[in-house]
Amino acid sequence: MILTVTLNTALDLTYTVDALVRHESHRVSTVTERAGGKGLNVARVLAAVGAPVLATGLLGGRTGERVAELLDVPHDFAPIAGETRRTVVVADGDATGFWEPGPEVTPGEWELFVEHYHSLLPGKTAVALSGSVPRGLPADAYAVLVTAAREAGVPVVLDASGPAFAAALAAGPDVVKPNRDELAEYAPDLYLSVDAGVRMAADRLRKAGAGSVVASLGSRGLIVVDGDGAHKAVPPVISGNPTGAGDACVAALVRALHEGAPDGAEVARDAAALSAAAVLRPEAGDVDPADFARLRADVTVTAI
Amino acid sequence: MILTVTLNTALDLTYTVDALVRHESHRVSTVTERAGGKGLNVARVLAAVGAPVLATGLLGGRTGERVAELLDVPHDFAPIAGETRRTVVVADGDATGFWEPGPEVTPGEWELFVEHYHSLLPGKTAVALSGSVPRGLPADAYAVLVTAAREAGVPVVLDASGPAFAAALAAGPDVVKPNRDELAEYAPDLYLSVDAGVRMAADRLRKAGAGSVVASLGSRGLIVVDGDGAHKAVPPVISGNPTGAGDACVAALVRALHEGAPDGAEVARDAAALSAAAVLRPEAGDVDPADFARLRADVTVTAI
Repeated sequence: MILTVTLNTALDLTYTVDALVRHESHRVSTVTERAGGKGLNVARVLAAVGAPVLATGLLGGRTGERVAELLDVPHDFAPIAGETRRTVVVADGDATGFWEPGPEVTPGEWELFVEHYHSLLPGKTAVALSGSVPRGLPADAYAVLVTAAREAGVPVVLDASGPAFAAALAAGPDVVKPNRDELAEYAPDLYLSVDAGVRMAADRLRKAGAGSVVASLGSRGLIVVDGDGAHKAVPPVISGNPTGAGDACVAALVRALHEGAPDGAEVARDAAALSAAAVLRPEAGDVDPADFARLRADVTVTAI
Repeated sequence: MILTVTLNTALDLTYTVDALVRHESHRVSTVTERAGGKGLNVARVLAAVGAPVLATGLLGGRTGERVAELLDVPHDFAPIAGETRRTVVVADGDATGFWEPGPEVTPGEWELFVEHYHSLLPGKTAVALSGSVPRGLPADAYAVLVTAAREAGVPVVLDASGPAFAAALAAGPDVVKPNRDELAEYAPDLYLSVDAGVRMAADRLRKAGAGSVVASLGSRGLIVVDGDGAHKAVPPVISGNPTGAGDACVAALVRALHEGAPDGAEVARDAAALSAAAVLRPEAGDVDPADFARLRADVTVTAI
């Protein structure tokens, strides 16, 4: 069974209004509530393609209870005293977003979560660590979680950015999944519009500790760099909602670890196809397995 | 003890942002959560001036539980299955508001609330019915609550508008508190900028069934029309936040019923002073008793 970790969960609200006018009042015509956070999207995609998954992370207060109620995959979260954050997107044809800062996690709560995570690792086949970290967590939060997984013999995909990501590289995550902007932080001197630049940037992350690097490049597809070389996967041209495509990519990567001994070319194909299948669905964290199967055949994979 | 009724409770959220820009994303710097709804403001003002109060109404879901947690006055709500609505105000110097439509209340839930309300009436000294009604309630919802209170010998203040207010007048609420716009619905032919027009409009509401009519006219003060005549109360010139001033007015009116046999001139003085004290505080539902005492002496009351 795969374990997904979402430290910065959210209650995602979408408000439909006729037209947002600054400094006016609006009657919201429809409200959509959804369990949010990148790791929860990963968990939902895994469940959609039939992979066994358990979601964990931090939840607090009534908003946290609401997130748990709305979540339709098996889960086992650790509690915090603060209220889980909300995000509000006002939709009037285009989107205006408001992100709450979220709770401050206490050192004691973090310690309890790490214990909880340790207790969940035995018997797991792979772990996905996704998204930003809430306030109050130590700089080495992801490093601690990567180390614990490795010590338990469970391979890890890490999809994060900023200082928490940087600090976790030395702990040796099996797979990391930077997008182009995240890769650029490690390669300000490289030209990432060409594949050779991406490969060189990925090699830096591998030197820093990552096992494989999967660079997600949006509609350009993705490049997998591992010990055997590099493969590029390009999906067919599609249009849709790219939000959550990166999480679907992570779902493919952690599923590959779950199935064991993944071949770079096949991983690249699955990840590109599952990302593309996510783009076809309006809601992040949703995929149709039939789209995935069909797109898999349409992805072009080349060794680079 | 006074009973306040809030059928359309809310979780009021205020988001502080630097500047709202349509179709952009915003990091919210501070989030304020508050138990919202006009009747809850009335209850809070009563508690602030030391009057014994119990708040009731409808609450549902995790949002309803959060409202109950945040409410700092004694309360005894009836449950509904739907999620209590949220309101979001984005503050960037001025306010942009988003009002969720709120839950649909089922006939069975309404029946249970009416039973609950009946059980709370014995021993109560006065009832305040405040604000809009949620979807799903019958047109005579307030009429039913007014009638029940009268049958139990408990006097009622009704502060509402629209069809639910219109339908409740014939049930004979002891006091109603229309503002100028609400009064205008009953007096499209009268000139409400002069006191004589307000008095004539108030007489129409009395003929329709209301005992006393207290017309709240913002900075112009208020006019109390009862069986003994009419009194006008004008507060000193103050500036502040007028949101919730009407609820403070209702608090004064229901407190007067609680204390028994109110004299029109004294009611007018208290109501104008308590409304003005609410304007001085930034948050709706809050008053400083010292402001109330001081302003009471500064209100000018005249028989008109």
